[in-house]
Amino acid sequence: MIKVALVGTGNLAFQLYKALLNCPEIELVGVFGRNQEALSDFEQVLTTTEAIVLPAADLSLIAVSDDAIARVSMKMEPKHGLLAHTSGAQAIGAIKSDRAGVFYPLQTFSKQAAVDFSEIPICIEAKKAEDLELLKKLAHLLSDRVQPMNSADRKYLHLAAVYVNNFVNQLYQTAFEIVDQRELPFNLLYPLIKETARKVRDNVPAKVQTGPAKRNDTGIISKHLELQNPDNKELYTLLTQAIQNSQKQT
Amino acid sequence: MIKVALVGTGNLAFQLYKALLNCPEIELVGVFGRNQEALSDFEQVLTTTEAIVLPAADLSLIAVSDDAIARVSMKMEPKHGLLAHTSGAQAIGAIKSDRAGVFYPLQTFSKQAAVDFSEIPICIEAKKAEDLELLKKLAHLLSDRVQPMNSADRKYLHLAAVYVNNFVNQLYQTAFEIVDQRELPFNLLYPLIKETARKVRDNVPAKVQTGPAKRNDTGIISKHLELQNPDNKELYTLLTQAIQNSQKQT
Repeated sequence: MIKVALVGTGNLAFQLYKALLNCPEIELVGVFGRNQEALSDFEQVLTTTEAIVLPAADLSLIAVSDDAIARVSMKMEPKHGLLAHTSGAQAIGAIKSDRAGVFYPLQTFSKQAAVDFSEIPICIEAKKAEDLELLKKLAHLLSDRVQPMNSADRKYLHLAAVYVNNFVNQLYQTAFEIVDQRELPFNLLYPLIKETARKVRDNVPAKVQTGPAKRNDTGIISKHLELQNPDNKELYTLLTQAIQNSQKQT
Repeated sequence: MIKVALVGTGNLAFQLYKALLNCPEIELVGVFGRNQEALSDFEQVLTTTEAIVLPAADLSLIAVSDDAIARVSMKMEPKHGLLAHTSGAQAIGAIKSDRAGVFYPLQTFSKQAAVDFSEIPICIEAKKAEDLELLKKLAHLLSDRVQPMNSADRKYLHLAAVYVNNFVNQLYQTAFEIVDQRELPFNLLYPLIKETARKVRDNVPAKVQTGPAKRNDTGIISKHLELQNPDNKELYTLLTQAIQNSQKQT
């Protein structure tokens, strides 16, 4: 049995709460958060706005926003065990403790959508070897994909995650706006969105690229530019060039 | 029974060939292509390099590259019925005939990957009302999603398709390059890629946006810029601005 304390009340904290509760080998001893109202979502365990009230644990998962990690972790007591933050972008040094660690689930979380942690890669790091073992044990209880990773590698992984998540989503939004102005339903594009994602499961993306940029079809490219507002034109031109550069290197 | 002739030997032609063969209400009378060797993939029906040899049909699907549509369609005879090209980017006028049409399946096709046409939206257009009915009948035999659409709307849809397919794939490639230089496996990102796509099935993309650009987290944004080469820096900056503009408008 691993005793875990949870810190934070955001989307990731909520999804971790549900996953930890569901795991018979884990005892979730309580949740610490500064917002009493947000804590009401965590009603199946002890909740508190004071770190000192949080029961003893083998480790504490600090699932708070990046800029709160340092401040919140300093409120924790030795009885709260290993202190692991859950951020992709922050180094392990954000927690000032010999027993610092990182437990970073690489996924986008919302409060509503149910999450299957078993498929989510969990990147772990700890200052002490025995703490890394503890994080590994916990991560394996939730996920089939556990990846020890240092802070330097993790910040690149987080940057890549911004590309495939936030930036890809913005391209979906641009497409949404283009079809919406013609009163066409965005869900016409959904099978293509799905297949585009599926294709890179087993392929290097550049190798399965298609379309006017790859073919250097200047006729279509100029026609497309004419259809767009200046902001989108700039984005279209830059991405067309990026495709052509990547194709040269492949 | 609808008699269909197929023109072209590329990826889409090959996938249409397999789908048409599998449909008991359709008789595929033959395939016309200029390349004898490529025609060998279509061995279950008559194949020819001369349009005149192609048997009579109710309609012919002209699945050739955009710049070949006009030339190829002029080789077709009245016995080949309605002439429908399969391009998203070309207007119906690319075919000089009273019996011109468009049959545009909105998906990315490769020769290998099996395709389930039933989920693929097929956008149809014809000059004559009775030809539109014929295309509708054919499209419904292959797909559950048939959308009559004029050439003006279709070119915007095609532009949007470039964003969600070619451009999204290029962002996957950028992420691939970022993790690859650290010798991290790209497939760590796959669950996030899949979830990002899934989220927009039922949501306007801007409403499910997350991340440093949305939060205007200038600390993370500057750290990310430091990690990148000049080309990616420019792309990162432009997409960050685009996210912030879309968020203002939502």
